[in-house]
Amino acid sequence: MAARLKKVAPIAVRVNPNVEAKTHAKITTGTYENKFGIAFEDIEAVYARTAKLKHIRLRGLQMHIGSQLTDVSPYELAVKKVLPLVKKLAAKYQLEFFSPGGGLGIVYNPALASGLPAWWKTSAAKGILTPASYAEKLLPLLQPLGLKILIEPGRFIVGNAGILVTRVEYVKRTGKKNFVIVDAAMNDLIRPAFYDAYHEIVPLTKKGGATIASDVVGGICESGDYFCKDRPLPKVGEGDFLALLSAGAYGFVMASNYNARPFAAEILVSGSKSAAARARQAVEKIWEDEKIVAWLK
Amino acid sequence: MAARLKKVAPIAVRVNPNVEAKTHAKITTGTYENKFGIAFEDIEAVYARTAKLKHIRLRGLQMHIGSQLTDVSPYELAVKKVLPLVKKLAAKYQLEFFSPGGGLGIVYNPALASGLPAWWKTSAAKGILTPASYAEKLLPLLQPLGLKILIEPGRFIVGNAGILVTRVEYVKRTGKKNFVIVDAAMNDLIRPAFYDAYHEIVPLTKKGGATIASDVVGGICESGDYFCKDRPLPKVGEGDFLALLSAGAYGFVMASNYNARPFAAEILVSGSKSAAARARQAVEKIWEDEKIVAWLK
Repeated sequence: MAARLKKVAPIAVRVNPNVEAKTHAKITTGTYENKFGIAFEDIEAVYARTAKLKHIRLRGLQMHIGSQLTDVSPYELAVKKVLPLVKKLAAKYQLEFFSPGGGLGIVYNPALASGLPAWWKTSAAKGILTPASYAEKLLPLLQPLGLKILIEPGRFIVGNAGILVTRVEYVKRTGKKNFVIVDAAMNDLIRPAFYDAYHEIVPLTKKGGATIASDVVGGICESGDYFCKDRPLPKVGEGDFLALLSAGAYGFVMASNYNARPFAAEILVSGSKSAAARARQAVEKIWEDEKIVAWLK
Repeated sequence: MAARLKKVAPIAVRVNPNVEAKTHAKITTGTYENKFGIAFEDIEAVYARTAKLKHIRLRGLQMHIGSQLTDVSPYELAVKKVLPLVKKLAAKYQLEFFSPGGGLGIVYNPALASGLPAWWKTSAAKGILTPASYAEKLLPLLQPLGLKILIEPGRFIVGNAGILVTRVEYVKRTGKKNFVIVDAAMNDLIRPAFYDAYHEIVPLTKKGGATIASDVVGGICESGDYFCKDRPLPKVGEGDFLALLSAGAYGFVMASNYNARPFAAEILVSGSKSAAARARQAVEKIWEDEKIVAWLK
């Protein structure tokens, strides 16, 4: 719904550099350098022109300032900036909704918070975005508008609801490094390679003893195929299972068949129940749409 | 074949920093920081130990120094470094082959060479890797070995043999930027977003007139979804077709269904003949392996 409405009247809000610095370069959105939205200073003219179009109905305003923001203050700043304009346009065009957009970040690295899922409750004091801190800062600003409020908290809802389970195939120790080679790879979860993203990695069975600085890597033929580098991890061996946490968003949906690797299965777990929500892809599916061109034979 | 043999006796060669600097951080391989291969100083011991194993036969040596090298000198340096060891091991273990590996780069940006495919013939003088310059430097070193020589010139063969054709959906001009929004996206060709890779972009129909600094971007909901930034391109409009050159390697094989986008069709072209070698993926295929878990109903 929000996606469809975006086409009606998206708004790009340029926020200050401190705000931008809180998100990765690849996922900022609210800057003049980004392809998204309409520049703040053009919005009134765009609405005026759009209002005259016979087949378009102006229904709302949506802003989007970036992805994976783990602090409420950028939202507060941005909403404060657009609020006068929202009021003006809402009155002028009888708008139905305002959306402060998505980008609500999750804490991938529990060292930054106080553990999972405890940080949901306790981290507001540190300025980390929680449903409570988000509501606390934004409700007083949004409520007086009297508009329907839409938000897009996709990652916030599903990010920490998924894990990627992988088996250790081999541990390769060189003079300088400890490589834990696993059967998942960047084709299954590209975020570490693509965004330098942190995913917490824990053995499925608790391991005692000292940790060792490890690179957890996949079997794909490129150096970018890693899940972490030089991270202190419990010693694991062939056959051990590891879980990559917070893999519920931007995980499977970005998967590829690179190196002819079929897509992983997806298992739904609820309490003690579990069932496959997606079957493991058969390797033949990778080439089923291919055919030998007649004139090559 | 080479891939299978790699498992027998891969060799990592650490080369000097100047050599490493010629390849992107994500695709270096011949360093102690990489997961690949066996460290140079460990090789003799590994062979000695392996030779005693009943079910393993030592058949050769393979080195791999990195990907997308467009200069012959790193190969020359590395081969010179390993040659004495290769001779010694070949004599001791009756090896059959030596492989100087892959990584033979192609010129993605024709501004760096003298045009395509002319650079194949003329760029050797500039030190750019060509079949001729590669052979000229390596043959005198390799021929005296008397071993079978294996190489892995995958990208070199197919990289420039493929293009990605895309249609302009919309041109969005803001005060600061000219965005050419196309119907291909990072899910079809991730190299620009992933490796900051350059792909030459040309209109299928020649356009005259002045160029304009343009960002060619896809329709995926992230800022990393671009094919070029601020590149002088001919002015194009809705419905025009663009070709992204050198998309024959690490293109389709790295494609994903991100944003529920089906895989593109692959068309084989030979002279005036053309035929689909892979059908465009039906959108239903994206979710065909999914199922609603019974206890959710």
